[in-house]
Amino acid sequence: MTGDTQLDEFGLIAELLAPLADNKAAARLSDDAAQVAVPDGQALVISTDMLVANVHFPANADAALVANRLMACNISDLAAKGAQPFGCLLTLGVAENWDSAFLTRFVATLAEGLKTYEMQLWGGDTVRAKQGFAGLTVHGLVPHGEMVTRSGAQDGDDVYVTGTIGDGFLDLPDLGSAYAAPAPPIAFGQAVRGLVNAAIDVSDGLMADLDHICRASKGGIEIEAEAIPLSEAGRAYGDLAALVCGGDDLQMAFTAPPAHADILGIEAEKHRIALTRIGRFSADGAHAAILLSEKGAEIKLQKRGFRHF
Amino acid sequence: MTGDTQLDEFGLIAELLAPLADNKAAARLSDDAAQVAVPDGQALVISTDMLVANVHFPANADAALVANRLMACNISDLAAKGAQPFGCLLTLGVAENWDSAFLTRFVATLAEGLKTYEMQLWGGDTVRAKQGFAGLTVHGLVPHGEMVTRSGAQDGDDVYVTGTIGDGFLDLPDLGSAYAAPAPPIAFGQAVRGLVNAAIDVSDGLMADLDHICRASKGGIEIEAEAIPLSEAGRAYGDLAALVCGGDDLQMAFTAPPAHADILGIEAEKHRIALTRIGRFSADGAHAAILLSEKGAEIKLQKRGFRHF
Repeated sequence: MTGDTQLDEFGLIAELLAPLADNKAAARLSDDAAQVAVPDGQALVISTDMLVANVHFPANADAALVANRLMACNISDLAAKGAQPFGCLLTLGVAENWDSAFLTRFVATLAEGLKTYEMQLWGGDTVRAKQGFAGLTVHGLVPHGEMVTRSGAQDGDDVYVTGTIGDGFLDLPDLGSAYAAPAPPIAFGQAVRGLVNAAIDVSDGLMADLDHICRASKGGIEIEAEAIPLSEAGRAYGDLAALVCGGDDLQMAFTAPPAHADILGIEAEKHRIALTRIGRFSADGAHAAILLSEKGAEIKLQKRGFRHF
Repeated sequence: MTGDTQLDEFGLIAELLAPLADNKAAARLSDDAAQVAVPDGQALVISTDMLVANVHFPANADAALVANRLMACNISDLAAKGAQPFGCLLTLGVAENWDSAFLTRFVATLAEGLKTYEMQLWGGDTVRAKQGFAGLTVHGLVPHGEMVTRSGAQDGDDVYVTGTIGDGFLDLPDLGSAYAAPAPPIAFGQAVRGLVNAAIDVSDGLMADLDHICRASKGGIEIEAEAIPLSEAGRAYGDLAALVCGGDDLQMAFTAPPAHADILGIEAEKHRIALTRIGRFSADGAHAAILLSEKGAEIKLQKRGFRHF
């Protein structure tokens, strides 16, 4: 580090980012492009998510929060697809308040994430921006043709979620840990890839995300409200509708045949993942998810999920 | 189109972008991730470049200009690496003045670019932003291990550039065609992949970009000022230093053994590319490019290139 409060583009790349790109594909960011060899028999799973100041995080947010959420939002997509993290490109719109201290902490947190998820940094682009933003394009690996899609749910499948629902929403106002440093079930997602029929990450809100599975798989999902896993804070909050539509959970929702219940439980235990069956997919339902009370009555929801756009 | 002046995120994706993603990997953007099979024996060349309003283009710029420059900046990197365009992801920060008409025109221009360069759209992310921005992450293909790097220049190599130098710089103030709708030499880049030792796209300014080759290849480049190809406007402009450091050309600079001069000329003619030998790389030079007058004196340059950051 130079001790300046501002780094220029080349300083940011050479001093902070290049040491993270110590892999064959990126060769310490020494070229305009990375050269990536994909292992035989593997296909790439590619996704991108970006975060914008005052839209996805407070403009004065801590650098570690921005880096952790950026990593988690993207890893969450790979987890739900059953993919193993491989490599990524980082795009940064550097706001005026993102000084050297901010960028150093951002990059250090990013480096931890790359290590945790065993993912390579392949490249990126940095620009100055009035409104800070950060984007990641992530590449995962699956055996050829085995990506878990939204469209594979089968009649009679059980519907599951990992973790608890609503804690991202509850932790957002105070930037608590469920919001600030989520841990998507990436290893579990790979472990159950061959056992599940359809999956999605819970990022917009449980009901909105299950709707996506319903539309893509052409069926309906009935959720038992009583079965939805809540944390102690979630149970105390009292407003289930807000929790199931609140977004930011970065858990995984999926459907699987009832015959796989036992082995899914074993995998969940092995990976220390809380796994809960919350409902059922049926091919003859309307193409949406509905929430049912203990007595079987539909609980009407005002909105289905949270839109950052 | 709905006739509204604003599209929401799902409308933008469903109505405008999904029809462009009619390929097997993206399946019309029906999932969170694309599933990409890389042909046997091929490696991926991956690069990303983004453009920000008031940094890389005027905030009131025409949608076609933004889309054309976004495509060209990214294709230019693939061209210099000798890669064949394969697929890309689009990230958009939608500013308030980017209404439905703007987005429709942006997407239509992007669609033309995808067709021109035979590249698939695999996915992306859209958010609202105060300051509009657009990013592309492009994936190209090369036979395994054959990406042209910055670091391969050999002692005695000739140094070449395609097209003319300085026209992007000259056309920037009035948003003329060399700036607004550049055409990187993508087919030529692939045709000469096996003939060149090192290459880079001329985006920051010819001298700054040649410096990158010098540092990576550990040698020096002497450029003959008289040899630099200029357009009529460039010759009339008179200030060669400004033209060679001005940036935005999106041409290709490369080094190749003198023995390849004839075949390079034939390939250039075949692809209707103006190709000019402008100097020589030597392993014993300082790790920078220098500009020499007809009499062999060094022409000193105040700055080496243009930095958008």
